[in-house]
This record gives sequence, C-alpha cells and structure tokens, in this order.
Amino acid sequence: MFGVTILGNNSALPAYDRHPTAQVITLNDQLFLIDCGEGTQIQMSRYKIRRSKIHHIFISHLHGDHYFGLIGLVTSMGLLGREQELHIYAPSALQNILTLQLEVAATTLPFALVFHPLEKDGPLIDNPKFSVACFATRHRIPCWGFIIREKKKPRKINKEKVLAFGIPANFYEQLKEGEDYTTKHGEVIRNELVTIPNKLPRSYAFCADTVFDESIAEKTKKVTVLYHETTYLKAQSDRAESRFHATTEQAAFIAVKAETERLLIGHFSSKYENLHDFLAETQTVFPNTELAVEGVTFIL
Amino acid sequence: MFGVTILGNNSALPAYDRHPTAQVITLNDQLFLIDCGEGTQIQMSRYKIRRSKIHHIFISHLHGDHYFGLIGLVTSMGLLGREQELHIYAPSALQNILTLQLEVAATTLPFALVFHPLEKDGPLIDNPKFSVACFATRHRIPCWGFIIREKKKPRKINKEKVLAFGIPANFYEQLKEGEDYTTKHGEVIRNELVTIPNKLPRSYAFCADTVFDESIAEKTKKVTVLYHETTYLKAQSDRAESRFHATTEQAAFIAVKAETERLLIGHFSSKYENLHDFLAETQTVFPNTELAVEGVTFIL
Repeated sequence: MFGVTILGNNSALPAYDRHPTAQVITLNDQLFLIDCGEGTQIQMSRYKIRRSKIHHIFISHLHGDHYFGLIGLVTSMGLLGREQELHIYAPSALQNILTLQLEVAATTLPFALVFHPLEKDGPLIDNPKFSVACFATRHRIPCWGFIIREKKKPRKINKEKVLAFGIPANFYEQLKEGEDYTTKHGEVIRNELVTIPNKLPRSYAFCADTVFDESIAEKTKKVTVLYHETTYLKAQSDRAESRFHATTEQAAFIAVKAETERLLIGHFSSKYENLHDFLAETQTVFPNTELAVEGVTFIL
Repeated sequence: MFGVTILGNNSALPAYDRHPTAQVITLNDQLFLIDCGEGTQIQMSRYKIRRSKIHHIFISHLHGDHYFGLIGLVTSMGLLGREQELHIYAPSALQNILTLQLEVAATTLPFALVFHPLEKDGPLIDNPKFSVACFATRHRIPCWGFIIREKKKPRKINKEKVLAFGIPANFYEQLKEGEDYTTKHGEVIRNELVTIPNKLPRSYAFCADTVFDESIAEKTKKVTVLYHETTYLKAQSDRAESRFHATTEQAAFIAVKAETERLLIGHFSSKYENLHDFLAETQTVFPNTELAVEGVTFIL
C-alpha cells in the first residue's frame, strides 16, 4: 500500500471547513506526515490516522499554515506516553521554536525528538525499501518539496519454470535481482525465461508552496503522482507570481513537463468557495488531475 | 450585554469534539478573548465570533492547550488586513515565541501587537465602564486568573419626579451619581426621591488552571459568575492534586466560599467522554452550576 491522505487543502486562512496543509503518506506499515497546519491533530482524529505509526515528519517551510499544528501534535504524543523516536525534517529555525515552547511549559517529552535541518537538495532517508529526498522550491521564504520513492522491486519467480529448468532454490534471490543462471554444463538460462517483472516502483512528489518554476518538472521527472499547489485560478497569474504561488494552468504545465501519471492539486485560496473551476482549468491542460479533497486517500 | 461564549472546554488532549480552552467575553460593544488553544480561530468561524471586535486577549499560562492557537489567530488577523492595535496580556515568555514565529515567516503585521506581561495580582485595564484584573492561581507553571467587572452603573432619573421637584437639567448628571439636590431656598431633595437604582454591576471570574486553593475564593469574592476548572471527578482528587488540577467538589467548595451566584465548570479531562457526572457531583455542593458547553453563550 502506497497512498496519500489529505488532511488539509487550503491556503493560509482556514475557510469553508477547509484546513491548512497536511498530508499523510502511507507506505506499507508506516506513515509519514508532510506539513502540519493548525488543527492537524484534530483532523487526524477525524480521519482515524494512527499517530503512533508516524516516525518521520517533513515540514516544507515556516509559514504558519504549514507548521502551526506541529507543537500541539508533538505535545499530545508526549501526553499519550509515546516512547519511539520522532524525526523532524524542517528548516533549522523550527528547532528553536519547538524547544522554546517546550521550555516555557516545563515539558520534558518522554521520547526523543530528532531534528534534521533542511539545507540542500538530496536524500533525507535511504533504506532498502524506500527513499525520501528534498528539493528547493521557489517561495517567499526558503521552502522545500519532498519525493518519496519505493525502491526497485525484485522480480517474481515463475515456480513452474524454475523447476522445469532445475534451478536450485539457493539461487532464487539472485534470480529476483535479475541475474541469469548458468548450469554446471555452462548453459545460460536467461532470467526473463524463469521470472516475471514485479510492479514498477511508485513515487510521490509534494511540491510545497512555489511560484511557477519549470525546474520543478526536472526535479520530479516521471514521478507516479505529483502534488502541485494551485493557490489561484489562471486569471490571477499576476497575483500568484507576486505572492510566490502558482495557478491551475501552471501546475498542469509542470505535470505535463514532468511526465507524471497523475496530478493532485491543492492549497486553494480562501477567496474561492467552489473548487470546480480549479479542476476544470487544470484538466484542460492535464486531464488526469484530481482535487486534493480532505479526508480522501489517493492510492498510487 | 455581558456574556461568556465557550469555544473550548477540554483539557490538554482534544477529544470527543471538545476543544482546548478558549472563551470569548462580550461586554457591550467589544469582545475579550481569554485563552486561545489550538483551533480557536476555527471555533470562532463556527460560532460567528467577529475577530475585528477583539482588542484584548488574555492568556492564563503557557501550557499549549491555552495558547497554541494564538499565533494562527494573530497571523490571520494580519492577512485580513487588521489595522487596530491588539493588546495581549500573558506571561512574558510568550512575546519571544510570537516574535520568533513572525520572524521566521518574514511576516510584518499590519497592526501593532501591544504586549503586557503578567507579573503580579492587580488591574490590567481600568476605564469608566469596566475593569479587568489578574490574580495568580496555583499551577505547575505560573498561571493567572482574570476578573472582568462592570463599573457601578449610574442611577436612573425618574423624569416625572425631577420635573415635579423642579430640579434643573444641568444637575441630572450629579443625580445619576447619587447626589442630593439642594434648592435655592436651602431645601434638600434626597436623591432616592427622584432617581431609581440601576442594575447592580456584574462581574466574571475566570480561574484558569489551578489546584484546589481556598485563596481563590477570597480573590473572586461575590463575582456574579465564577468559572472554575474541574479536570477530574471527585474520586480522582489525588491525581488532581499531583497534576495541579481541581475536582468537581473542590470547584463547588470555592463557589460556596466565594458566594458567587453561578458556577461554570470546564477543562474536562479527555478520559471522560460523558460529562453528566461532572454536573451532578458539582451540583450536590453548589446547585447553581452549569457545564461550560462549547458554542453556548452564558448571559450574566
């Protein structure tokens, strides 16, 4: 299972029961949280997100609608007796803010808060099953996008064929990695004859807040699902640019250029009650677009 | 109009759709906010509280469930273009936290944030119509309660009587203040003959978070409505004491001793889903008790 659950899809001012940015990524047995606007812990309760499964939190930038809910979530985890480490990847100043808020409350958390300051494009987590990397976006203050990628999956053994060719079981792991088998008589059994390809590894890119910036398409090239902000409709492109935000048409252009399979759009300005035009305008350029509706889990 | 609207009545962990502490006091044409837990700005939208009418915010102490929503509210006021001064009365460390959070976001508010650190018992605001004072409560970290008092109201002129006695209109203001009138012949017209008393001035005491402390009854003597926390039921008095909180029975005892007219109870622990026992236990000792239910306005 690889999915993205939307907890908040609105820009700075909460409105129309839309909440500030927060997304939960489910990757097999663990959860990642990306951004944590005010009220995220309440949204988590509403949508039955298990906080204890979260070990890694990624904060794109220090505008309040992307992090004001973090200290409340962290404090609640402490009150609930959490003992597992919690890793936070964020611009470095966030550490001072959290530390100060814990200090004035005379709070000692019962778990370790491990802080990873975001400083340059590159990997944040890299293990045999998945990787997470960050990349700079262009916003009014330093801001980061994140890409979560599954690792390449091993090929599947075709049981009938390996038995028919008499390949010993202790070579199966190498078969899964794509190696050919050479018999003791020197005969080469080509890998494709005895294995079948697994699903392609999937990937999700969260492009945070950003002004229209074509380099984002390069940085997110061929991800399975791309999340791009659309704070404004296309008629508001001047306003978008002056505020370091993007429009529907611009997000769609990035999706086309990145050759992504699907586009998710969000971070809607509070001036719009109805979101239909966001979807229509974006789909005109990139048909496989969906609105990042709160409470919905998008399966990759 | 003098009323208290409850926006949050739960203790630290949000639960059962109960929110952390926040109360809005309506006094004639203005609003005061007391405490501002996470999500307060969303509760304000839900209950149609006009943020522009708030000029004074009082924060009892720096446990997160009493102030984590403040920076979001302040930021939103800025985004909405507020220009009027906003006065914040709170423990001094809050100023550093707010300043730091505004700095990292490169935010300059379009209005002045005037900070008043709480340091000792006494008046915070004193004008001809009302006063606000603070008093220390006993909690794990420094914590303050607040009392809002109307000023004594002028007596009302009995129009028929003043005309009958021939008292000139330019003496009416003195009559309202209770003075007797002396005619040019030296005859004294006693004030009670020509005026009627106005309503008694009303008052509201918010006792914040506190362990059971009898001195609070002295500090809030004879207020019209007393809000006292009841984090726990009476069976949990040991737990209450160790966590610097109070029980139902203790709050009722304070209300009896303070000779208040009505008692409001709140700050319920998340371990209790049903609040009926809180009401029943408190009413056994102090019958005129009400639960601080969210969304309800209690008129004094």
